[in-house]
Amino acid sequence: MPRALEGIFSARGCAIVGASSNPLKAGCQIVANMKAAGYDKGIFPINPSGGEILGLKTYASVAEIAEPVELVVLAAPAASTPAILADLGRRMAEKKDLAFLVCSAAGFAEVGTAEGIGYQEALASFCSSNDIRLVGPNCVGVIDPVSRIDTTFIAGIAHVPGGISLASQSGSVGAWFLMNWSSTAAGGVGFRRFITVGNMADVTIIEGIRNLADDPATKVLGLYIEGSPQARELVEAAGMAARKKPVAALKVGASEEGARAAKSHTGSLAGSDALYEGSFEQLGIARAASPRELSNILRSFDSMPLPKGPRTFVLTQAGGPGIFCMDQMAGVGNLATAYVSDETKAALVKCTPPISSICHPEGHADITAAATAAQHADSLEAVLRDGGVDSVIFITVATLFLDLEEMARNLAGRMRALKSEGISKPVFFIILSGNTVQPCRDILEREGYLTWDSPEYAVRVLSHMTARAEFEARLAREGGDR
Amino acid sequence: MPRALEGIFSARGCAIVGASSNPLKAGCQIVANMKAAGYDKGIFPINPSGGEILGLKTYASVAEIAEPVELVVLAAPAASTPAILADLGRRMAEKKDLAFLVCSAAGFAEVGTAEGIGYQEALASFCSSNDIRLVGPNCVGVIDPVSRIDTTFIAGIAHVPGGISLASQSGSVGAWFLMNWSSTAAGGVGFRRFITVGNMADVTIIEGIRNLADDPATKVLGLYIEGSPQARELVEAAGMAARKKPVAALKVGASEEGARAAKSHTGSLAGSDALYEGSFEQLGIARAASPRELSNILRSFDSMPLPKGPRTFVLTQAGGPGIFCMDQMAGVGNLATAYVSDETKAALVKCTPPISSICHPEGHADITAAATAAQHADSLEAVLRDGGVDSVIFITVATLFLDLEEMARNLAGRMRALKSEGISKPVFFIILSGNTVQPCRDILEREGYLTWDSPEYAVRVLSHMTARAEFEARLAREGGDR
Repeated sequence: MPRALEGIFSARGCAIVGASSNPLKAGCQIVANMKAAGYDKGIFPINPSGGEILGLKTYASVAEIAEPVELVVLAAPAASTPAILADLGRRMAEKKDLAFLVCSAAGFAEVGTAEGIGYQEALASFCSSNDIRLVGPNCVGVIDPVSRIDTTFIAGIAHVPGGISLASQSGSVGAWFLMNWSSTAAGGVGFRRFITVGNMADVTIIEGIRNLADDPATKVLGLYIEGSPQARELVEAAGMAARKKPVAALKVGASEEGARAAKSHTGSLAGSDALYEGSFEQLGIARAASPRELSNILRSFDSMPLPKGPRTFVLTQAGGPGIFCMDQMAGVGNLATAYVSDETKAALVKCTPPISSICHPEGHADITAAATAAQHADSLEAVLRDGGVDSVIFITVATLFLDLEEMARNLAGRMRALKSEGISKPVFFIILSGNTVQPCRDILEREGYLTWDSPEYAVRVLSHMTARAEFEARLAREGGDR
Repeated sequence: MPRALEGIFSARGCAIVGASSNPLKAGCQIVANMKAAGYDKGIFPINPSGGEILGLKTYASVAEIAEPVELVVLAAPAASTPAILADLGRRMAEKKDLAFLVCSAAGFAEVGTAEGIGYQEALASFCSSNDIRLVGPNCVGVIDPVSRIDTTFIAGIAHVPGGISLASQSGSVGAWFLMNWSSTAAGGVGFRRFITVGNMADVTIIEGIRNLADDPATKVLGLYIEGSPQARELVEAAGMAARKKPVAALKVGASEEGARAAKSHTGSLAGSDALYEGSFEQLGIARAASPRELSNILRSFDSMPLPKGPRTFVLTQAGGPGIFCMDQMAGVGNLATAYVSDETKAALVKCTPPISSICHPEGHADITAAATAAQHADSLEAVLRDGGVDSVIFITVATLFLDLEEMARNLAGRMRALKSEGISKPVFFIILSGNTVQPCRDILEREGYLTWDSPEYAVRVLSHMTARAEFEARLAREGGDR
């Protein structure tokens, strides 16, 4: 049995081969990221030129480091693989402490040349014969803000601990997420672990999934999948994870052209898309249609309760966007109209402008552009208090009559008050439009409420959340893990 | 024959009934918007309290204004309709100059009450018996930055002349667009005309479409449609427009629930969605899946040349997003792989990092995260010079190695240089991700190049542009209008 991937998160001592003091080099940013993450078990930049890198003493080789080194990150060109392996071989002959190797460099098997394939084989062979686990090559490795490790060279990451984990075959897709997440109003989206596997010469996406499935701090799991020779095993691992926590996957390479591109990207066989598609649904895995949707799903599952059922109320201050939203809801197929009680209807009539359209049709109230900030909050409260409502899609468009920031504070306060009474349902705050609404959205986001710039994304995520709620109910009936 | 809607854009003298000095009232913002648009034919705020509004003298009634008044905007509550009509009746008895009435207020037939229906009938009857055209009620009227008119109460609009026109049954959907467009880096998206028709008591969306179809300054036409009792006539009007210029439509009320909401929004019968769907395709009208897509289509048609054909090259610096993009391209169905020549392949190999993947598969080059700003521009130029390429999707992800702003300047310069040689093809610049890439995107946008934050939107728009190119070729073969 090879050692478990889990150990990488507590590895003592990290050597960075190809470390650099040039801030435009990966070998500099990796040092910076390890420091920024707060890694305190020894960072050892390897650079034969000597001197310091970001205030840290450099070493000419891994072999010469006196302290323990359990993790090595390789940021040197693929062509230097033989020299690096010689150094690592000396280390193992003397100290025997290396346990994990993350290879950030590209130019290995994915390029398809004899050299590239040869370098990858040499790396993998060295690792397997020394009981070292190899992550990559052609990946950005791992991040864990709690374990305080970040082997990536992605700049500007906010290392905020949270519940979302991501296992990705692509470094850039992971970077895409983290760069978006790091620039939110709330100072960054919290995440738990981030594992990229690149060419999967040893550690596979399957092992990444299993690690995160077993990790109790991972509340929701996202997957970016290009393909695997063990497609069925991959799907089963994701399915096992989905019995424990929400899992959402973006599977690319669905088309013939995309599959060929995947082959030359990480050397992955995309495999039959039909296998993934059919299995995902059966196993309770949310299939994301795009990176944006995957990000939306993860953030929503992480920050909102699941709806108790499919009954959705559309509370809108703008007619057109409300109609578009109802079309979108009909399109996803698993959402239902929330029929509210006569008492709720009376309450809505009372707390909204006279020209409002209340429950014509059912499940929909247009409180019109005349609605005040207080009327927005009052009508949301009325709808949330109704036992026939499982979730709410709330839409408002900036008008000059409406103090959007006051509205945001009202809404956040009302949500908190209702929660303290035990009323907690998913609410999708769609705030239109342009730069002018950003301060309003920022207020809600800082209070922990997601906001949206168009209804279609919210509707699709709500559909996934509703499907998850049904899946968990089925698991419970069957006496599943959860 | 009632007078043509076109006259509204040159109406001499505009009275604003319900004008207010309270900046939170529509009646204040309409005065502000007319001033901001530069309307110089006389703005007459009507407010019985007297005094000035935004520096303009107020009047107690429309009847008492000595100057010509061809346009009246109503921003007073529906219940004041009888009093307003008495005033307008006096004006017509004495001066006979009123020609257009825009009713911004809501609370008419759309609320479904006897009063609301009665007020709307009184308005419509007064107008028809006095040869006055009525726009609305329950609309925000019209904007035309060149004619310098803006009857809306949407705050913060950049009145930048351009080629895009919009005819919308919803004011808020129009506002959604304009608020987004007004907050671009380039200081606002230029537009030609904006016509909202609300309850369509007289001027219909059909008339709006015909006006914009006949307007030579409208380069591309966008429609937001909830429905019409004359659905076939509407579709035919859009089809006639599409023979003259690109037309894109967002039709809502496709679902039963959405149709019922449309009924209570602007009193529109959504009509059979199948009629719209089938006709749109046949008549060469791009059907937008969402407001965002409609906005994307309009901006793209306005700012980019049409592709000569379907052959699309994906030039990416990031593997994962490139694969996702190729899947999306396969999904839209009318895009094809661009096979480049051996010379182009050699040029690409020469100008990109050694580990790049050039045309494996065909139509795709991954220049990898190692690519410099210059290599981005060089590879784009190589691809654009190839006669087998009709369009390019360009994807890059922020890395620390890449000076994104330098890249943006390089790209814009190269595009300009190629254009001066007569090489002009649509290029979709997808720049990932987060806030850090905004300065790069701003540089390109200020130079007139659209940028995107995910491939799926670009692919869908390119599909619409390719379909339009095919439609125009068909029209040309058939000896059509264009």
